[in-house]
Amino acid sequence: MDNGKTTASARRPGGQRRADAQRSIDKILTAGLKLYSSRPGVSVAEVAEAAGVGRVTLYGHFPSRTELAKALMERTFEETEAAWQSVDTSGPADEALDRVLREQWHLMERNRNLRENVLGDVSPQWLRTRHDPILRRVEALISRGQDEGVFRNDLPLSWMVTTLYSLAHAAADEITAGRLTAEQAPEILSTSLRSLYRP
Amino acid sequence: MDNGKTTASARRPGGQRRADAQRSIDKILTAGLKLYSSRPGVSVAEVAEAAGVGRVTLYGHFPSRTELAKALMERTFEETEAAWQSVDTSGPADEALDRVLREQWHLMERNRNLRENVLGDVSPQWLRTRHDPILRRVEALISRGQDEGVFRNDLPLSWMVTTLYSLAHAAADEITAGRLTAEQAPEILSTSLRSLYRP
Repeated sequence: MDNGKTTASARRPGGQRRADAQRSIDKILTAGLKLYSSRPGVSVAEVAEAAGVGRVTLYGHFPSRTELAKALMERTFEETEAAWQSVDTSGPADEALDRVLREQWHLMERNRNLRENVLGDVSPQWLRTRHDPILRRVEALISRGQDEGVFRNDLPLSWMVTTLYSLAHAAADEITAGRLTAEQAPEILSTSLRSLYRP
Repeated sequence: MDNGKTTASARRPGGQRRADAQRSIDKILTAGLKLYSSRPGVSVAEVAEAAGVGRVTLYGHFPSRTELAKALMERTFEETEAAWQSVDTSGPADEALDRVLREQWHLMERNRNLRENVLGDVSPQWLRTRHDPILRRVEALISRGQDEGVFRNDLPLSWMVTTLYSLAHAAADEITAGRLTAEQAPEILSTSLRSLYRP
């Protein structure tokens, strides 16, 4: 089936071939996000099947699990950025941070299986680096809170950002492990960070 | 070289063969721990070379990177247990926990490259599960502190244990990332947990 498709598209003009390829990529990423988010332990073969493309086609676009994992994570980072834009960050920084946290939490909770599926394929360092744009916004908000006197200033700013990043992912993992419920997790996370950040 | 050795040991009595195998395993684990702890990105071939055994011998004992990673981690868990035993946990629970944390910190800091080397080979869940014996001791100490009134009791006990586990590993990773120094990290970790645990 794959070979047939390749031969057919090879006879088409370049623009058409590129459009076909983009459609395949979209189908793979859409099916991949859905599957990876549904449960841990998803195989690349399952993604190809759910996307309705052959394995050869999938490997043609994503030569390794790592390539696929990175492409799937890039899609979710776009959502993360959009979620931040939707939050009102005016007013006292501690209240604004709490609103941001709860808005971002929905994405983290929804994506916790996705994260588990990609952790063997991309390094924690890669994940952290790709979170940099959002973490720089968090940092600016914490810094504003220090100026306003609502956050402590006896800990390095970068460490305060890291505690938020670590504890938020830890809370999501605790749901997966069955030690927290999805209902109690955001409140517990918020309470913990308030204790950690208060002067 | 490997084939020669195998043939020679095949002619020996079973006890001698087992002793040879145990010596190979010891050499591999000793060299592996040293290499994995020295820097990230170590290959299995490098471990074999440092241990002075052939790759075939290494793969005979550890058929995959995962098997080797698990065996190396098991060795460090024995040290973790011994480090706990060496700490005086009498007296107020908050002071005892701080002593435990500083003692365990030395191991975590020393083993942070090891951890980074195995993270692609064993799951975070496996690592957490193998920490269970030590985390149950942490839990008992936090629980005692709640009874003594030195620790808060408005957060789930399991979550308090998780915050210690997550923030300790985060602090070690911050040293690797160059955002904390090895000197400041234990104090910052201790300060953070005191804020998080106080009633």
